[in-house]
Amino acid sequence: MSFTLARRAARMNPSVIREILKVTERPGILSLAGGLPAPESFPVEAMRAATERVLREAPREALQYAASEGYAPLREWVAAQLNEQGLAATPGQVLITTGSQQGLDLVAKVLLDPGSGVAVEAPTYLGALQAFAPYEPETISLPCDDDGPRLDALERARGARFLYLLPNFQNPSGRCMSAARRLAVADAAAAMGLPIVEDNPYGDLWFDSEPPPPLAARHPLNTIYLGSFSKVLAPGLRLGYVVAPPEVFPKLLQAKQAADLHTPGFNQRVVHEVIRDGFLREHVPTIRARYRARRDAMAAALARHLPPGCRWNAPRGGMFFWVELPEGVDAAALLPRAVERGMAFVPGAPFYAERPQANTLRLSFVTVAPEQIERGVELLAQALKEFA
Amino acid sequence: MSFTLARRAARMNPSVIREILKVTERPGILSLAGGLPAPESFPVEAMRAATERVLREAPREALQYAASEGYAPLREWVAAQLNEQGLAATPGQVLITTGSQQGLDLVAKVLLDPGSGVAVEAPTYLGALQAFAPYEPETISLPCDDDGPRLDALERARGARFLYLLPNFQNPSGRCMSAARRLAVADAAAAMGLPIVEDNPYGDLWFDSEPPPPLAARHPLNTIYLGSFSKVLAPGLRLGYVVAPPEVFPKLLQAKQAADLHTPGFNQRVVHEVIRDGFLREHVPTIRARYRARRDAMAAALARHLPPGCRWNAPRGGMFFWVELPEGVDAAALLPRAVERGMAFVPGAPFYAERPQANTLRLSFVTVAPEQIERGVELLAQALKEFA
Repeated sequence: MSFTLARRAARMNPSVIREILKVTERPGILSLAGGLPAPESFPVEAMRAATERVLREAPREALQYAASEGYAPLREWVAAQLNEQGLAATPGQVLITTGSQQGLDLVAKVLLDPGSGVAVEAPTYLGALQAFAPYEPETISLPCDDDGPRLDALERARGARFLYLLPNFQNPSGRCMSAARRLAVADAAAAMGLPIVEDNPYGDLWFDSEPPPPLAARHPLNTIYLGSFSKVLAPGLRLGYVVAPPEVFPKLLQAKQAADLHTPGFNQRVVHEVIRDGFLREHVPTIRARYRARRDAMAAALARHLPPGCRWNAPRGGMFFWVELPEGVDAAALLPRAVERGMAFVPGAPFYAERPQANTLRLSFVTVAPEQIERGVELLAQALKEFA
Repeated sequence: MSFTLARRAARMNPSVIREILKVTERPGILSLAGGLPAPESFPVEAMRAATERVLREAPREALQYAASEGYAPLREWVAAQLNEQGLAATPGQVLITTGSQQGLDLVAKVLLDPGSGVAVEAPTYLGALQAFAPYEPETISLPCDDDGPRLDALERARGARFLYLLPNFQNPSGRCMSAARRLAVADAAAAMGLPIVEDNPYGDLWFDSEPPPPLAARHPLNTIYLGSFSKVLAPGLRLGYVVAPPEVFPKLLQAKQAADLHTPGFNQRVVHEVIRDGFLREHVPTIRARYRARRDAMAAALARHLPPGCRWNAPRGGMFFWVELPEGVDAAALLPRAVERGMAFVPGAPFYAERPQANTLRLSFVTVAPEQIERGVELLAQALKEFA
């Protein structure tokens, strides 16, 4: 017909994971595939009270057009929160976004030309690859060990527009960068003139001890920091934020304004109403306790059922286990067999920007109850033994 | 410092209007500048009941991650609504967006390469120009008369990726395209292989008679149609939609997913709860009545106060009057004098993609009460007489 697509449209693709999830949403499938927070942890009562209050006290303001920067008290709350974590940010550096996914889109829109380098971890968050792809960058995948990106690989990122990192309980690997690696990577990147985009949706979901300070605390002027309310409150509100150095903040704001004018003011006020008096100090520990028990259940189930030759590390926070199957076992080929047996996972290959490691898979431990985790892992192990 | 901006960032600019609004938000300024719906028309009670119900009946679904396409019952409602207006669309063609501004961004992202032509009306909606600009198109401005874009000018749009039109009570001109012009433009564009992007935020706000059918009804496969809940319910919810032919829908969906995963599910369910049983059939007429009275007040005030040599047409819907000052009078230079006297408007020049007509200005008649409209126009006339 008459429509001519932009060249960048060729770089857009349906999310492999969403396609997999469609298959695995068949009734009776025990899914460890999704990346959904446990809905029983959503603070429904607090939300109800907050919406009621916002609609009683400031209905016209909450329902009217609002500032592209975001709701001022929420920006202040975010800045204060980050200051406590050692990240010196002013409210003027905080841009409220429609989920942190939008933050990734805006950052890419402002910083990436066709052919620009963008360095990522191997593996990395698939949603970030999808946000960056339409801007047609060259993606450089940095080899990682259990502490994060390997220092001897950083040179590969030289000249890139930024290095994208998810240091806390990474999706998909569950990895948490060590304090020493954070400092070393932050310093090396600053010395190379390589900006860092630090994404932190899971940092509050630690089970054993708080993660080390953000890389942004070390070199705030070299770092754009992204946060989210999706994992500590609820994702259906689509509320995240970007904290940016004064050098790039104005362009991110202009991009935000062009993209959707502003994030729903109603949602911003409701969330601020929920959290303003310290609600998260009580609430987040209940999520941690729930997720920790499920992490323990999955660690035990994996140890009990998986055959020799499989490797995994129990994550110290977040939502995911990352499993390496024996060399030569293709997780994508295993998936249909697992689904036949009644369980689902996400194969690891799509999380790699380059050179996918086909013998990896991601398991979510937060959406289902411990007994189901046990059963799901048992089914996975059966499928694997039959397949190998 | 270390950040290198993308080339497209040079095309992003702060909204001229938002900058003007900052100046004019000084206390004591009677502003006819803003484009804000009247907050007293926000259905606060209905919203309160709907949020309460959503959080009681489906809290976990409303607060969880959701489909990028949008909430299925809301997509069905939109399709049914458009079918009534003669636009044959299926729910599968409806993409729910974070305000219709996001629809403009997604359309541009999917259809515009650097240097692509995009044709717009002169003047046109500034937010559309801002949404398109980062994709670095060549913007072609089509001369218009009171019925819409002039047919003899359409040839200038040949080869453009699309023609952007706002046929109902356009922002800023208030113009409503005639039925004959719609058909002629839709047919000519289809014959030229020129897709149309039809934006309709104001169509429900008619005062005298319903506007003619959308251009999309004539050539649905050649048209992308955008709608919004901002003007009939409230803008602070950020809910709009794009209706696209099957040929382009999948790419728009992929762009949407990369941009913010999905529009807040909570907001979609609340709005669906408000409107599902015909609420808008009662509610929208109350907005029309309020705005009609204010339109009449402004028409009377303009006739009473403006000096000879000024031209305007009373709009038959929407939110804006468009005033042409005498030849040679620069509205941007007039603005500070008007502000000194205590009123504000928006100069017309920024609404032109090419060859701005400096002697134009936009007045909003919906945000303030009739007495204030009278007073605001009187102050404008005084400033103008002093200035000319």
